[in-house]
Amino acid sequence: MTFYVQKFGGTSVGTVERINAVADKVSGFRTAGHDIVVVVSAMSGETNRLIALAHEFSEQPEAREYDALVSTGEQVTSALLSMALINRGCPAVSLNGGQIQIQTDDVHSKARIRTIESERIDAEIKAGRVVVVAGFQGVDSRGNITTLGRGGSDTTAVALAAALNADECQIYTDVDGVYTTDPRVVDGARRLEQITFEEMLEMASLGSKVLQIRAVEFAGKYKVPLRVLSSFEDGPGTLITTEENEEMETPKIAGIAFNRDEAKITVLGVPDVPGMASKILGPISDKNIEVDVIVQNISEDGTTDFTFTVHRNDLTAALEVANKVASELKAREVKGDDKVVKVSLVGVGMRSHAGIASKMFAVLADASINIQIITTSEIKISVVIEEKYMELAVRSLHSAFELEGPSPVEQ
Amino acid sequence: MTFYVQKFGGTSVGTVERINAVADKVSGFRTAGHDIVVVVSAMSGETNRLIALAHEFSEQPEAREYDALVSTGEQVTSALLSMALINRGCPAVSLNGGQIQIQTDDVHSKARIRTIESERIDAEIKAGRVVVVAGFQGVDSRGNITTLGRGGSDTTAVALAAALNADECQIYTDVDGVYTTDPRVVDGARRLEQITFEEMLEMASLGSKVLQIRAVEFAGKYKVPLRVLSSFEDGPGTLITTEENEEMETPKIAGIAFNRDEAKITVLGVPDVPGMASKILGPISDKNIEVDVIVQNISEDGTTDFTFTVHRNDLTAALEVANKVASELKAREVKGDDKVVKVSLVGVGMRSHAGIASKMFAVLADASINIQIITTSEIKISVVIEEKYMELAVRSLHSAFELEGPSPVEQ
Repeated sequence: MTFYVQKFGGTSVGTVERINAVADKVSGFRTAGHDIVVVVSAMSGETNRLIALAHEFSEQPEAREYDALVSTGEQVTSALLSMALINRGCPAVSLNGGQIQIQTDDVHSKARIRTIESERIDAEIKAGRVVVVAGFQGVDSRGNITTLGRGGSDTTAVALAAALNADECQIYTDVDGVYTTDPRVVDGARRLEQITFEEMLEMASLGSKVLQIRAVEFAGKYKVPLRVLSSFEDGPGTLITTEENEEMETPKIAGIAFNRDEAKITVLGVPDVPGMASKILGPISDKNIEVDVIVQNISEDGTTDFTFTVHRNDLTAALEVANKVASELKAREVKGDDKVVKVSLVGVGMRSHAGIASKMFAVLADASINIQIITTSEIKISVVIEEKYMELAVRSLHSAFELEGPSPVEQ
Repeated sequence: MTFYVQKFGGTSVGTVERINAVADKVSGFRTAGHDIVVVVSAMSGETNRLIALAHEFSEQPEAREYDALVSTGEQVTSALLSMALINRGCPAVSLNGGQIQIQTDDVHSKARIRTIESERIDAEIKAGRVVVVAGFQGVDSRGNITTLGRGGSDTTAVALAAALNADECQIYTDVDGVYTTDPRVVDGARRLEQITFEEMLEMASLGSKVLQIRAVEFAGKYKVPLRVLSSFEDGPGTLITTEENEEMETPKIAGIAFNRDEAKITVLGVPDVPGMASKILGPISDKNIEVDVIVQNISEDGTTDFTFTVHRNDLTAALEVANKVASELKAREVKGDDKVVKVSLVGVGMRSHAGIASKMFAVLADASINIQIITTSEIKISVVIEEKYMELAVRSLHSAFELEGPSPVEQ
C-alpha cells in the first residue's frame, strides 16, 4: 500500500468528462489499495471568469476580497470530483483550505503556507475515504481566505505530501514529464527519467513552467519524492528526487531553460558604497515585486552599475521605485528594457566538469548572439540576451550539448 | 445611528449593474452613519448553474458535497459586493458561514442554525466596516459546510439580526412589500403597511413566497423587527412586528394566501387505534419530507381516513412510504393526488370575529367550488380544493372580504 498525494491541474479537470476521467483514475488507485489525497485546481477558464467578474468592479480589486472570490473555483472542482468518486462507489470527501487549516501568512494572492493540520485528513483516510482538497488556498491567523498565487495548487500538493508523510507526490499535468528544454522550441527535446531537486529548481524558476518553483523548493526541503506525469496518457513521467542517479554516468547538462517574461532594469552610476544594493532592492521587495537576476560589476571610478530583472508585468512599478531610489542615491540614470530573455544551462554535472561555461559562450558567439548579462551558480549558467535571439540560442545550445540523444536511463 | 441587517436576494444581485446599485444603496446608509451587516444570496442563475453541474455527475448528488458546491455562489457575491463597496470608499469585508461560525446541525441542504459567533462581526463593525455575509450557509460541529435550503439567506439575515441585536432586519426583494394576496392573481391586491408575525407566518407558509417561513419564525421568536421592501424602488415596504397596530381598527383579514405546490395523500380505512397518526407520519418525517395539512375525520366503523399534504416534488417518495406503512397497518387503500391547491384566509382579527368561516364557505359555494379538506387555526382558515379553481377562489374571497380598499393605515 502506497500513500499518494495527486494533483490535477485546471486542464485535467476542465470539463465534466475530464473530471470523470480523473475520478476513474483516482478510484482505480484506491481500488488497488492505495491511500489517496487529491489536490485540484479550478476548472480551466473558471479562475479567469472570476477574475473578469472582479475587474468589472475595479481595475485593482481589493486583495482580501479577490482571494475570497477566486478561491471558490477550487472548492467547486473539489466538490464535483468528490461527487464523481462517490458515484463510483469510492468514498470521498472534499475539504477546502479553511477546513484543513492550511495556515498561511496574510499576504493576499501571494500567501505562503506556515502550517497544515493533518488531523482531519488522517481521520478521513483512516475511514477509507479519498480526500479531495481545494488547492491554491489557505487561511491566515484570523481565518481570512488567502491564495497562494497562480500555480499554487502544486504547492498545496507538496505541502500536504510533506505534512502527511506521503510516499510520493504526483503532479498530473498536460505534459508527460520534464524535458531537456521546451519541445515547442526544440524538436529533439527529450523527456528526463529523473532530475534532482536542485536541477528542477533551476529549470522551473527559469521558465520550464511544468511545476511551480515553490512546490519544488518545498519538496526538496522536506525530501518529498515528486513525480510529474500526464493526466491523459499512461507513462512514468519524470521523478524529481534528492539523489543523483549514481548508476549511470551523470550527464553534464540536464536541460536548457529559458524565460520570456523578463524585464531588465539598470541603475547607472551609483556611488559604490556599502548598503547600496539593499537600498535599491529593499523598496522593490517592499512592493512585493520579485527580483530574479541581480548583477553588479566592479567599481571603477567610485560609481558602479547595478542591474536586476523582474517579471515584465512588474516593470512599470519597479521602474517607479528604482527612479525614486536612484535620485535619493544620486545615481546617474535608470534604464528599463522589456525586450530581454534569459537562457540557462542547468545540470548538477556542471560542478565537476570544467569548460562548460566557455563552451556555452562560444556557441552563442558562433550564432552571433550578444550576451548582455552573465550569472552563474553551482549548477547553472544563465545569460540575458535580446529577446529575438531566444529560439536560436536554445536550439544552438541544445544541439551543442548533445541533449537530443536517448536518455542514459533508457539505454 | 441605527443598526440594520439588510438582505439582498438573487435578483437584487443578479448582474454587475445590480450589485453596483446595491453598493450605492448600502454605502448611502453607511454614509448616513448607520451600522450595516449585509447578507447576500448567489447571483440569480448561479445556484442553478452549480446544481446543473452537480447533476452532470449524479441524479442524486451526495448531500455534503452538494452543499460544499452550491455554497460557493454566495461567497462569490459577498466578495464582489465587498469589492464594489471598497471601490466607493466604503470599508467592507466579506465573511462566509465558516468564518463567522454560523453553527448548524448536520442535515445537509436543510440545516438549521444553532449558534452564531458575534465576535468577528462586532470587531469589524467597530472598525467601521460594512460586513457582507454569504447567506444560506453554515458549518456543522466538524466544520463541514452546510446549507439552509432555498431561501435560507432570509434565515441567515434574521438569525444575524437576532444574534447581533440589530434594530431592524430588512429583506430587500423584487416586490415592494407583503400584499393582501398575489397581485398576479388579483388586480386589486393591496400592500400592507404592517402585519403581525403570526399572520406573516401563515401567509409565508401558505405560499406568499415573499419571505421564507423559518426566517419569520426566527424573527418572531427573537422579536426582531422585520421589514420587506423593494431593492429597485424606494418605499416603506411592509413592517412585520410583534404588535397588532392598536391605533386602527384591526382589519378582520390580513390577506389571502395560496399554495399551488400541494399534493394530497389519503390513507383510507385505517384501524382507528392510538398511535396510528404517528405510525404514518413518523416514517414520512424520517425521510425529511415536510408535511403541511394533516386531517383525520371521526371514526365510524372502527376505521378512519387519514389525509395529509406534502410538497408535490415529494409526492412519489411520500406515497412509497405511505403504501408501506398502510400495508403494515392493514389499511384499505392509499390515494395520491397532485392536482390540489390550498387557499387560506389569514388574520389576527379572526380571533374575535365570528362568522368568518361560514362566510368563507358560502363564498366558495356561490362560486360552485367544492371543498375537499378544511383545517383551521386561531388566525387562519384553509381549504384544499381542486387546482383549476384556485384563481377563482382567491378572487372571490379577496372581493368578498373587501381587501381591495385603501389600507387603514394609509387613510
